[in-house]
Amino acid sequence: MSYQSKVTVRYAETDRMGITHHSVYFIWFEEARSMWVKSSGLSYSEIEKRGIMMPVVDLSCHYYGTSDYMDELLIVTSMTKLTAAKICFEYNIYKENSLITKGYSMHAWVDGKTFKPINVKKHAPDIYNLMYNALDKK
Amino acid sequence: MSYQSKVTVRYAETDRMGITHHSVYFIWFEEARSMWVKSSGLSYSEIEKRGIMMPVVDLSCHYYGTSDYMDELLIVTSMTKLTAAKICFEYNIYKENSLITKGYSMHAWVDGKTFKPINVKKHAPDIYNLMYNALDKK
Amino acid sequence: MSYQSKVTVRYAETDRMGITHHSVYFIWFEEARSMWVKSSGLSYSEIEKRGIMMPVVDLSCHYYGTSDYMDELLIVTSMTKLTAAKICFEYNIYKENSLITKGYSMHAWVDGKTFKPINVKKHAPDIYNLMYNALDKK
Amino acid sequence: MSYQSKVTVRYAETDRMGITHHSVYFIWFEEARSMWVKSSGLSYSEIEKRGIMMPVVDLSCHYYGTSDYMDELLIVTSMTKLTAAKICFEYNIYKENSLITKGYSMHAWVDGKTFKPINVKKHAPDIYNLMYNALDKK
Repeated sequence: MSYQSKVTVRYAETDRMGITHHSVYFIWFEEARSMWVKSSGLSYSEIEKRGIMMPVVDLSCHYYGTSDYMDELLIVTSMTKLTAAKICFEYNIYKENSLITKGYSMHAWVDGKTFKPINVKKHAPDIYNLMYNALDKK
Repeated sequence: MSYQSKVTVRYAETDRMGITHHSVYFIWFEEARSMWVKSSGLSYSEIEKRGIMMPVVDLSCHYYGTSDYMDELLIVTSMTKLTAAKICFEYNIYKENSLITKGYSMHAWVDGKTFKPINVKKHAPDIYNLMYNALDKK
Repeated sequence: MSYQSKVTVRYAETDRMGITHHSVYFIWFEEARSMWVKSSGLSYSEIEKRGIMMPVVDLSCHYYGTSDYMDELLIVTSMTKLTAAKICFEYNIYKENSLITKGYSMHAWVDGKTFKPINVKKHAPDIYNLMYNALDKK
Repeated sequence: MSYQSKVTVRYAETDRMGITHHSVYFIWFEEARSMWVKSSGLSYSEIEKRGIMMPVVDLSCHYYGTSDYMDELLIVTSMTKLTAAKICFEYNIYKENSLITKGYSMHAWVDGKTFKPINVKKHAPDIYNLMYNALDKK
């Protein structure tokens, strides 16, 4: 399942080079991932209330182009991998149909209090299944 | 007691106007306030561990000048008022001896769990006294 | 003329207190102001292309409540004053019909290259009139 | 040549998970890179004044641990590759001697106006040589 969302570049997100600062894309990835998770049937807040967190363990981004203030961008988010320990997402950001950024994130399933890894398949099979079905649906 | 700290403008803190984005000054105020509190003898983390928080209730800033990437700025922070319910700070930011920003913040003493106001003088007299002495020392 | 816009709190906009960081509201004010300006008939980018900028000279915010991750907020933006030298805006942010933040910003009309004040009424009467009509229309 | 710098986590840099938000590390990498460049003998502002920019084209980060408000971190920055078209950096962030983050960035040498790639070896041999010597010095 891939999820499409939109974002408009804020003034504060630009830098003195006159373009969106590169760190901002990771905030957009997160927002898009948030919406992807919500669309799977369970919001990320609800997952956190269950005592489970998904901190980022690996992150990367390749920049093919730039964006600027007021640009309206399309973000296509897909979950690319799911195991009992990890979940991975891919993000493609388009400006007027041309790909400007491609990102990737890997997250660990951890206990919200101890930050220790958990086996989400055993610990919260309903959450695992929801995500698994979303992976399948694509 | 006034506390002097320094900050160097980061690239990401500038915007397409080629100057530091106005919202960044509030983050610097907070960092300066953090150091002011620490210099009073108790870090803000320790206050939070005691179950007390100091959320911002009022904030203002006047901009007399601008700053840019790599500028080294001086922040002079003073506590201007202390009551059992509130604490106020003032911030003056200088670039090469000229005042570029003057800011002000008011914070409520609240319970860290309920966010309800507390009387810090009764609730944590040691913290109140540390702050009170810092006010006096100036 | 008042303009209504919406914003959903991003994860990155929260802090360890578990609420939206106070500095974020100024970024939302700016985004809302951006949309207000656009709705007056001329985007802020177009104003900048004309060599005119509107840097913030005065900013304030009062916090009546808090917001958190995924909260959907309503921002009501009004222009409250317009002169040849300055323009002022007011922002009211609501969470489920209750006012959580009230902000205010004053901006100077300046030359985009020199950052020197300009008389916008003489320098760009069409821009002044567009804004003036927007003030009237409310 | 590797360059060591320090950073203290700001309150605003934390999120509701109670840790530094993952996007903040890229801002620290940039600040550290800025200082690396300055220590090579030429500040990044001076490079920009020469009409040359170094936008990020590739970025990645692996997170081994977390950091929190007021943590004092050590950043070790090294330039790992230099060609006429590109320059690469590596960043290792330590909290109390344990590695918490490892990052990598690749930058293109571009014309500051057109954002088109340039051959920095031909276009600005003095800048290339300064960087080359820094690479060597390690």
